[in-house]
Amino acid sequence: MIAWALRRTIVPILVAGAISALGCSLADAADAADTAATVAERLGHEAQMDDWGYKFLETMTSEIGPRLAGTDAEVRAAKFAEAKLKAAGLDVHLENFPMTVWERGIETATIEKPASQRLVLTALGGSVATPPAGIEAEVIVFRTYSALLAAPLGSLVGKIAVVTERMVRTQDGAGYGAANRIRRAGASEAARRGAVAYLHRSLGTDSHRLAHTGALDYADGILRIPAAALANPDADQLERLAAQGPVTIHLTLTPSERENGQSLTVVGEVKGREKPDEIVLIGAHLDSWDLGTGAIDDGAGDAIVVEVGKLIASLPQHPRRTVRIVLFGAEEMDYSGPAYTKAHIDDAARIIVAGETDFGARPIYEAKLPAGAAASSFGSVFGGLLPPFHVLLSREPSRQGGADVDGLMRAGVPIVSLQQDGLDYFDIHHTADDTFDKIDPAQLAQNLAVWAMFTYLAAESDIDFRRLPSPAP
Amino acid sequence: MIAWALRRTIVPILVAGAISALGCSLADAADAADTAATVAERLGHEAQMDDWGYKFLETMTSEIGPRLAGTDAEVRAAKFAEAKLKAAGLDVHLENFPMTVWERGIETATIEKPASQRLVLTALGGSVATPPAGIEAEVIVFRTYSALLAAPLGSLVGKIAVVTERMVRTQDGAGYGAANRIRRAGASEAARRGAVAYLHRSLGTDSHRLAHTGALDYADGILRIPAAALANPDADQLERLAAQGPVTIHLTLTPSERENGQSLTVVGEVKGREKPDEIVLIGAHLDSWDLGTGAIDDGAGDAIVVEVGKLIASLPQHPRRTVRIVLFGAEEMDYSGPAYTKAHIDDAARIIVAGETDFGARPIYEAKLPAGAAASSFGSVFGGLLPPFHVLLSREPSRQGGADVDGLMRAGVPIVSLQQDGLDYFDIHHTADDTFDKIDPAQLAQNLAVWAMFTYLAAESDIDFRRLPSPAP
Repeated sequence: MIAWALRRTIVPILVAGAISALGCSLADAADAADTAATVAERLGHEAQMDDWGYKFLETMTSEIGPRLAGTDAEVRAAKFAEAKLKAAGLDVHLENFPMTVWERGIETATIEKPASQRLVLTALGGSVATPPAGIEAEVIVFRTYSALLAAPLGSLVGKIAVVTERMVRTQDGAGYGAANRIRRAGASEAARRGAVAYLHRSLGTDSHRLAHTGALDYADGILRIPAAALANPDADQLERLAAQGPVTIHLTLTPSERENGQSLTVVGEVKGREKPDEIVLIGAHLDSWDLGTGAIDDGAGDAIVVEVGKLIASLPQHPRRTVRIVLFGAEEMDYSGPAYTKAHIDDAARIIVAGETDFGARPIYEAKLPAGAAASSFGSVFGGLLPPFHVLLSREPSRQGGADVDGLMRAGVPIVSLQQDGLDYFDIHHTADDTFDKIDPAQLAQNLAVWAMFTYLAAESDIDFRRLPSPAP
Repeated sequence: MIAWALRRTIVPILVAGAISALGCSLADAADAADTAATVAERLGHEAQMDDWGYKFLETMTSEIGPRLAGTDAEVRAAKFAEAKLKAAGLDVHLENFPMTVWERGIETATIEKPASQRLVLTALGGSVATPPAGIEAEVIVFRTYSALLAAPLGSLVGKIAVVTERMVRTQDGAGYGAANRIRRAGASEAARRGAVAYLHRSLGTDSHRLAHTGALDYADGILRIPAAALANPDADQLERLAAQGPVTIHLTLTPSERENGQSLTVVGEVKGREKPDEIVLIGAHLDSWDLGTGAIDDGAGDAIVVEVGKLIASLPQHPRRTVRIVLFGAEEMDYSGPAYTKAHIDDAARIIVAGETDFGARPIYEAKLPAGAAASSFGSVFGGLLPPFHVLLSREPSRQGGADVDGLMRAGVPIVSLQQDGLDYFDIHHTADDTFDKIDPAQLAQNLAVWAMFTYLAAESDIDFRRLPSPAP
């Protein structure tokens, strides 16, 4: 890893001076804060010098590979992470929960008319199968999702509905949020109108012949029809051909479901030295889609939070509060947050703050704290550490954390959000292209550094994020 | 096409002045050259304003799609091009030639040990099949092709040989030329050492889970073993796993061959008004690989040469010499150049100059003329037209034209080479990603303009490229 170490930009230790300049506003907490800031700063520096998390990710994505929820591979990943966390000195346990396991089968499609051509697509997670021999039907192309919704009931009887609306590339992933219903709800909307299958343009910003999978939600009481995402160039091709005349395709999807499956959560803790019952929780999800090896989604997040646990466990003294590292199972199939919240609803009040990292390994550019925290002494200290890492401290509070922790948020847990640059994230997200070569170790280390500093400072501080005054408007 | 037209940079008509400034060196030919230059310049300008070739390419790649050599799709493409050339006013005929048709079947591979994982690969053109149930064997990874060549005879008995050497990204494609033997010759080199199959890292500069196909050459007298190219991330994965311990894979390839097939060449001519027996030949290949729709390889070239034919046919008067547009069949299976040269060896002496375009649709950056031509009055006129298009006139002569015309070159035909920027070409080349969305219409038009100017000037001039003095050293 010599070459890699040389490639990194090492952030100089310049922060201590900046912190002490904040002394007057920190009032009585100044000495303690200075000490915590110094430790946090050193953690950030160490994070940049170490490749432990990068190697964790390399091993997990190479030797285990894809980690589909509810499969043996997910269990192997959990055992691997458990061993790594134990070796790093954390207290570790696993928590099982039940799930329905969905596995991909054959997925092929060909244009039959006007001329035979293969289409690249992938079944949506949770999709029902076609008959084994497939189905053949004419497609009706809608260039926007609204146009599908505007189609009258019964107007798609016997047809395959295709939505080719394109998601918008944004830094914060808002384009994905806006387009999400196309994948989530489209199949039932098409079925409501009589369609026999549903295809949509992948929720992806690339132009490769690789389709983006993801889970769908069937509406209650509506016939479940097979559903798949088309690679972007294939959606283009269908658009062009359908503009010329009738297009017929043959579609075969053979996924299967298994009831009474199981997923699991890996929990590692560094017990607080003064207030072990107060918890700073950071997490990522361990499962991945089956098409790639889950490097950006969410192996990178796993590597970050596991190494944060390792760095904090190896400090000369533990922070005051407990640091809890959580690797969630079955996030992609929508189980992780609900399962964890349900299991921990009674101790949610002990969680001081929670956050997750699940947006790849590109740099963090903005930190959002719980309401009131940015203007607090905590915000001053944390904010003072961020400039060398090119991270803004937002004046806006964090309003969401992600699928794994939003259940806790609704149960009253304050949330931190460290926003990564996601401009390119949806080029790769949920495709076969999500592999280890897409990870830049220096960018992964920047994430690690910022998470390590935040986690340590929150665990070492007395701040109660639930009881901060709201910021002035 | 409004948006597209607005996006183009229109090259202003500034060239005539530059040309007349060259008058003294053009000596007696000055008046004629000025006239030809003015027509050529206007052709270049028209080429930039027109989207006929772009639409030709859109239709061919959408409505016909992949055009594998010897298949019905190749014939449909030939009929489509024939009709377009006829409608544009050219004299058109087809020339058939025999070939062995190779078609892809199933191609799957999984790592069996240390843990089950799918590998993305694609059979090489001409590869034999595995047994229908596939073969399972341990892999031996060679990080360079030289390391495979250094392996002793008999050292790979029962193994699958894997070469993971990576090709180098270069503007002129030299990295592909250097790596080509890995795909062409590797299977027989592996078989010579006892291997039961051969895999190599795709000859590609991308990092996508899309493998790059291409033809191989089996050496005479050596057992033919199945051969395929791995996607780059999959070659990385095998490298990492093989460094940790034994890796076993299961490989299934079921391509098939059919003797007594047929391919065809489409020829369109604009008869010369004074010297119809002297021919300026430009070409591209009509067939494509089956994985994509052959947009950059070589639909773009087809669109360029067909529209050059159309533009020249629609001039108020034909140029002095005949312009011959050739769309070669079965280039990817190595038939095109040899078949055409064999059929036309007796009239090769009538071909004044030949060139082909088969390197995508990125801009031309350098023109290489036959030896002596750059320093001639022809070179002065042609070179004077190039600066607005950001093209260099090289002082080096053209030493190769490409697979379609190199047979003519060896038969004594002078060659022109208009070198395109190929930095990104091998990200897509021979993959499923070779689709219409990869084409930038403004860049396609730049190619068209330069080819139109060259072709017209060569056909209108008296220059005999075979009889030019060699340039001073």
